[in-house]
Amino acid sequence: MALIVQKYGGTSVGSIEKIQNVAKKVIEEHKKGNRMVVVLSAMSGETNKLIELAHQMTADPDTRELDVLMATGEQVSIALFSMAVKSMGYDACSLLGFQVGIRTDQIYGKARIQDIRTERVFQELEKNRIVSIAGFQGLDEEGNITTLGRGGSDTTAVAMAAALKADVCEIYTDVTGVFTTDPNICPRARKMDYISYEEMLEMASLGAKVLEIRSVEFAKKFNVPIHVRSTFSNERGTMVVSETKDMEKITVSGIAFNKNEARITISKVPDKPGIAAAIFNPLVKAGIVVDMIVQNTSEEGLTDLTFTVAKADFYKSMKFLSDVAKGIGAEKVLGDENIAKVSIIGVGMRTHAGVAQKMFTTLAKENINIMMISTSEIKISCVIEEKYTELAVRVLHEAFGLENGTQI
Amino acid sequence: MALIVQKYGGTSVGSIEKIQNVAKKVIEEHKKGNRMVVVLSAMSGETNKLIELAHQMTADPDTRELDVLMATGEQVSIALFSMAVKSMGYDACSLLGFQVGIRTDQIYGKARIQDIRTERVFQELEKNRIVSIAGFQGLDEEGNITTLGRGGSDTTAVAMAAALKADVCEIYTDVTGVFTTDPNICPRARKMDYISYEEMLEMASLGAKVLEIRSVEFAKKFNVPIHVRSTFSNERGTMVVSETKDMEKITVSGIAFNKNEARITISKVPDKPGIAAAIFNPLVKAGIVVDMIVQNTSEEGLTDLTFTVAKADFYKSMKFLSDVAKGIGAEKVLGDENIAKVSIIGVGMRTHAGVAQKMFTTLAKENINIMMISTSEIKISCVIEEKYTELAVRVLHEAFGLENGTQI
Repeated sequence: MALIVQKYGGTSVGSIEKIQNVAKKVIEEHKKGNRMVVVLSAMSGETNKLIELAHQMTADPDTRELDVLMATGEQVSIALFSMAVKSMGYDACSLLGFQVGIRTDQIYGKARIQDIRTERVFQELEKNRIVSIAGFQGLDEEGNITTLGRGGSDTTAVAMAAALKADVCEIYTDVTGVFTTDPNICPRARKMDYISYEEMLEMASLGAKVLEIRSVEFAKKFNVPIHVRSTFSNERGTMVVSETKDMEKITVSGIAFNKNEARITISKVPDKPGIAAAIFNPLVKAGIVVDMIVQNTSEEGLTDLTFTVAKADFYKSMKFLSDVAKGIGAEKVLGDENIAKVSIIGVGMRTHAGVAQKMFTTLAKENINIMMISTSEIKISCVIEEKYTELAVRVLHEAFGLENGTQI
Repeated sequence: MALIVQKYGGTSVGSIEKIQNVAKKVIEEHKKGNRMVVVLSAMSGETNKLIELAHQMTADPDTRELDVLMATGEQVSIALFSMAVKSMGYDACSLLGFQVGIRTDQIYGKARIQDIRTERVFQELEKNRIVSIAGFQGLDEEGNITTLGRGGSDTTAVAMAAALKADVCEIYTDVTGVFTTDPNICPRARKMDYISYEEMLEMASLGAKVLEIRSVEFAKKFNVPIHVRSTFSNERGTMVVSETKDMEKITVSGIAFNKNEARITISKVPDKPGIAAAIFNPLVKAGIVVDMIVQNTSEEGLTDLTFTVAKADFYKSMKFLSDVAKGIGAEKVLGDENIAKVSIIGVGMRTHAGVAQKMFTTLAKENINIMMISTSEIKISCVIEEKYTELAVRVLHEAFGLENGTQI
């Protein structure tokens, strides 16, 4: 008899019929003797509807009250789910963040879970009930409602699994697992049986949005095995687990890409201390996140500074920086929105040489110019022209033999 | 500086613009130096929408989960209201039932308030915030969400006013106050300046649905003055208060009517002990409420028993009773849906004679036949043919001089 935490996203509970299907799936597991805890998101579309309502009220809604508003979406889902289970003849109980005791910090809209109580959940499980829990929400120490940000239900599920010491945390979504890359642009992409937390973090942060990144951090920290799988099939999905020795045999596990960044170059910057700070401070203050940064070799006391920001922040950044450039005596600010970042990821890189060389050669063979490079222990990212994204992903997928990968 | 509890119903908060208008009204009072606590209902239509969702899931939704679902309506209202207040430059804080500490019993869907904590509300008021509270909802001792039933937000407001020892509880609605009778059928109906709790209870239970009956009971118990007034005008409304000496000067304060009952007669019932119990037990078990009961004089050991039930329960009742009648040897069961109950109400009746006589004479003059009569200390009700309802109300209104009533 296992204790299983399952999480179903908005598309999985997007209608009365879909909620009934989820109830049936959960009851199947319950009938096998498993204790079931189910974390649900708001029905698809509901969260956006609530945000729209708030924005009809005011352009800049109060963040505390926005969380009060947003938290209703998941409340509706768990109530309907429990009704469904009960109407099918099984006992059920829905619990909100405050009823479980999901304690967070006070950063409305992006709160972090600090502590979870388990008494009430175990009480309900002991009564042989199927317990459903509202994802995405918690309570700060003053008793205010907080929400965890987009994708927060994944974090709720993993944190619940950690607190309850569940045997597994199953994340149900609309894909069958984590793929070596996006099957829509690379038909030979292969579903992985296993992936390490570290690799998953790189995949998630680079645009393969299967799991919310904070939920993976949580799972890594508390060593919670995650099973990513489809609501709409019984196929085995992908296990996200701690790194094992076997995983290192595979050099590259997956290929991620991100078309949502833009590149900015400030040219002929006087190369003296404090210049980088002068450039980036105004961006940080405006809440603009800078991703890759490359500074070219200095020439005659002048240097070029290149970095990437989210496309959504591009125009705002260009506006800030044209003032900054004047202030520090730089020549000009150049921007390019037509770029993409392609990354190869794998824990095996740590122990295998020549991986970067192989990536650069593969791209060069296709005449794809590399504009920027950044590397980490288990990842190499290249910025290229956006139009080459799909081609780059496909040739790299083939070069590293991902379609035949004998996953552990 | 007063502490004022205001309650706004669903039609008053039925859209973004209406919520903004309510925010402006509340801010006006706040600017005068008053401490404001605002109880809100769900936006009009929302509660029905949620019920419909539940019934799409199952014909007989679990009551605990239905309350979890229903409670979201008021949560949306208070969040949007607080956003509105803040966007207008004033500080605000919304509180849900669990955050205030509104403790109820565990009768889902019809819970009764048992205790209210005031610490959090006073904390927020001390920070000079406009406090909004979700009406209709509470928490049982196990921490489950409960709701108080239709019109429950009135009860929340009065109970909050009692707990906070507020100076007044203002109930904002879509009429300008409590009228001597329904102005739609009697154009000479007059808005009352004052009405006693007792009279209001009779008016409410008889179909003049301005205030939820339990809120009036609560107000009476804790002596909370209620001011019933319109959201859409600044006109003074009606004060619902403890009975005063002056009130007794007026014999009849108001005239209520109810077209939602049906009459059932069981004829030639053997007149022996236990018969009434045999007749009413099956109705009670089916949750059918019997209102007026009249038993005619027995003749040769046989009696006729007549009573009224809600029209919605009429067919069910007739079905039950045809079986019962056979069982006890009664002759037959007769039903009549085309009836109405017309009542005159006034605390002055206690000290004035001849009131009933005047009522009967007035109806007789118009050839309106009285089918049933029931009386209490401050009320006389007559069942008549439904088609005469409006006529009866108008002639009684005139006979008792209600249009000129010099209200205290």
